[in-house]
Amino acid sequence: MIRLRERVPVAFLLREGEPGREYTVAGWVDTVRSLGGVVFIVLRDRSGLMQLVVKRNVSREAWKTARKLSPESVIAARGVLSESQAALGGRELVVEELVVYSKAEPLPIEPRDYEKTTLAKRLDWRFLDLRSPRNLTIFLVEAEMAWAAREWFREHGFVEIFTSKIVGAATEGGAEVFSIVYFDKPAFLAQSPQLYKQMGVIAGFERVFEIGPAFRAEPHHTTRHLTEYTSVDLEMGFIDGYEDVMDAVEGVVRSMVEAAVKAYRDRIEEYFPNAVTKLPKDIPRITIREAYKLLESEGVKVEWGEDLSTEAERKLGEIVEREYGSPLVFVTEYPWRARPFYTMRKPDEPEWTLSFDLLYRGLEIATGGQREHRYEVLRRQIEEKGLNPRNFEWYLNMFRFGAPPHGGAGIGLERVVMQTLGLPNIREARLLPRDPERLTP
Amino acid sequence: MIRLRERVPVAFLLREGEPGREYTVAGWVDTVRSLGGVVFIVLRDRSGLMQLVVKRNVSREAWKTARKLSPESVIAARGVLSESQAALGGRELVVEELVVYSKAEPLPIEPRDYEKTTLAKRLDWRFLDLRSPRNLTIFLVEAEMAWAAREWFREHGFVEIFTSKIVGAATEGGAEVFSIVYFDKPAFLAQSPQLYKQMGVIAGFERVFEIGPAFRAEPHHTTRHLTEYTSVDLEMGFIDGYEDVMDAVEGVVRSMVEAAVKAYRDRIEEYFPNAVTKLPKDIPRITIREAYKLLESEGVKVEWGEDLSTEAERKLGEIVEREYGSPLVFVTEYPWRARPFYTMRKPDEPEWTLSFDLLYRGLEIATGGQREHRYEVLRRQIEEKGLNPRNFEWYLNMFRFGAPPHGGAGIGLERVVMQTLGLPNIREARLLPRDPERLTP
Repeated sequence: MIRLRERVPVAFLLREGEPGREYTVAGWVDTVRSLGGVVFIVLRDRSGLMQLVVKRNVSREAWKTARKLSPESVIAARGVLSESQAALGGRELVVEELVVYSKAEPLPIEPRDYEKTTLAKRLDWRFLDLRSPRNLTIFLVEAEMAWAAREWFREHGFVEIFTSKIVGAATEGGAEVFSIVYFDKPAFLAQSPQLYKQMGVIAGFERVFEIGPAFRAEPHHTTRHLTEYTSVDLEMGFIDGYEDVMDAVEGVVRSMVEAAVKAYRDRIEEYFPNAVTKLPKDIPRITIREAYKLLESEGVKVEWGEDLSTEAERKLGEIVEREYGSPLVFVTEYPWRARPFYTMRKPDEPEWTLSFDLLYRGLEIATGGQREHRYEVLRRQIEEKGLNPRNFEWYLNMFRFGAPPHGGAGIGLERVVMQTLGLPNIREARLLPRDPERLTP
Repeated sequence: MIRLRERVPVAFLLREGEPGREYTVAGWVDTVRSLGGVVFIVLRDRSGLMQLVVKRNVSREAWKTARKLSPESVIAARGVLSESQAALGGRELVVEELVVYSKAEPLPIEPRDYEKTTLAKRLDWRFLDLRSPRNLTIFLVEAEMAWAAREWFREHGFVEIFTSKIVGAATEGGAEVFSIVYFDKPAFLAQSPQLYKQMGVIAGFERVFEIGPAFRAEPHHTTRHLTEYTSVDLEMGFIDGYEDVMDAVEGVVRSMVEAAVKAYRDRIEEYFPNAVTKLPKDIPRITIREAYKLLESEGVKVEWGEDLSTEAERKLGEIVEREYGSPLVFVTEYPWRARPFYTMRKPDEPEWTLSFDLLYRGLEIATGGQREHRYEVLRRQIEEKGLNPRNFEWYLNMFRFGAPPHGGAGIGLERVVMQTLGLPNIREARLLPRDPERLTP
């Protein structure tokens, strides 16, 4: 009688099991081969792989079952742990009882050879694609990073909030927003929790964070855009300046990367030889004007006073990696014309702002800055951006009844995973990616 | 020169500050009164309240500033901690420097007298409504519960996943789904991550969880429905039966309630005299057929073989509280006709299912059960429910290539908060509630 409650992960058995003792394991059949009166099964669970040996002379019933097994079927086995030079990890389970929960048909894709399958087809069969330990690892890393971020936030006094993703007006203007049919009213999907996280600070939470979905109706077909992604958002009140926000972002991202490497170093090194496994002690911070100069000195044409192009970001990442030995770089003081209305401008140079992007291997993974908290200035900035203050009445009201100086940032979770592991496409870092063409599974 | 980085929470000063030392505090002006050459300010931050004393003969400049302060303005103060019998907490800060970051106009609602304001108006001015420590506490409790749930999941081997909220088809059939304009395609907002969390288990994560938004286009105007809420979802593979899922739900909910009470006992007892602050050692589990009998014996008419009405659930909560001394009760074995197609049925009594609801003070806060993982049975169940298997092709395919026995549940975060604190309306437990009439802020 097999009780799944008694099941132990195979990695535990290989590492800490006591030979001679009985154990129960369960998982997927990775491979199976029959040799006379013996069937060798490699069993795979989330923790790893382990050999099971099913001998006719130990259990005829189990042996008969094992001979008919197909790869990826789900089984459980009870047996005695035994040393074995031939088995991977030097141990195997000699099976006394075997149960099949689910027989697998021949597979439409071969997860272990995922490189031979197009990404589109892999995503069509996502639940099989993830049977590859390499692909599963991406999401173990993602979960670990999310946990590490939350732990960092908690240790630093940030309160988790859950803001509404259905909104009555497009957050920051712009057309890249999905429309919803909300009973008889028009509504939209939130592009970010920007205004609501500011509300959290002003309402008295002081410091808030949220890790949740963000929606962008961008018709881009690139390797780094998704229409739905996970945004790690933070907002903090009572700051001395936007440097405090950069310190927070640096703390969060560092803890994300370091936690993932600590938890999964072996797998990361095995499956992602191009991964970042160590961050430098200091992350350089350069103004965008310094970035313009660096880029120009390397022959990359940039428009002074404009945002950086994707290509310029990529090149800047290379330069910083070479000059500072850092895969991460903060670019600061973005031009006012390239930033949203709520950005605080530099007091002495109002064409530049107290804002930043964080680039990781040449890709923007975070954007943030100090927010304008002075009602009159904010109102003027809305007008200067060509927006109608009446559409922001609710938002503007927040600054009339006691708003502390504050700032914040949004970090793209999938992008951090992608750049840490060196993935070629962000869709690999999203369980169920959505793009203009893909809505399923 | 005030540096906000040096700021300490007022609760820390009252508890652990050293009299005679200099400190910096910042927050909102709770009250202010002027008496000759002295201004008394009660400062409020997230941690609590504290008196500041601004004396003309200590700093004339600070005193002049303080005399003009209005309630809810945002200030910071640097000064020396001093013992004071008259001040709350027995201590006050004698101010040497005072900075005003944001002057508050007269308030449109009075947060401290929130009971005198309608809930609708409170929600219109949510950022002021939350200036009431009682209302802020609701969300501190909510954040603590989310943290505790995640910690429980992590300790029990669940991996966090981030599933898409934009879906190509309505998850479980039914009309209560919001439509999206997704480029040129029809799409919907996910009512739950049901099928995707099952995918996580089948893909090899074994145990998954997600805490994220769920969307229901229900035109209900009740005190317990929201069109967008936070769902605490879990799904676990390799179970012996649905009792394992109930054990998990019990573990999660217990850790949520206990963590919140541990972190905020004083505030909960002060602001929510009707709160649950202790759970019984055992949570009773009764079949729905037993529930029918209990209800009938108390004169509540129920339809044998039907789901429980809201009124029946409320009454059952009362009976269980009285008979078992428990605010929580699992009701099990719901009738097949009242459960979705993916529910596993009782092998010996197929009109009943291996499913459950968890009631908390007579309100459903969680629903779950074992899922049917046998392809042929699942296919028949889809047909039996009058659905077209072709619309579930992607989902059905998952059961052809190795699916372990599994089960799971969804827990409504706001409902757990509401019932723990004894709130009269679920909107109070949602930062930005959405209902058929409300889309803002």
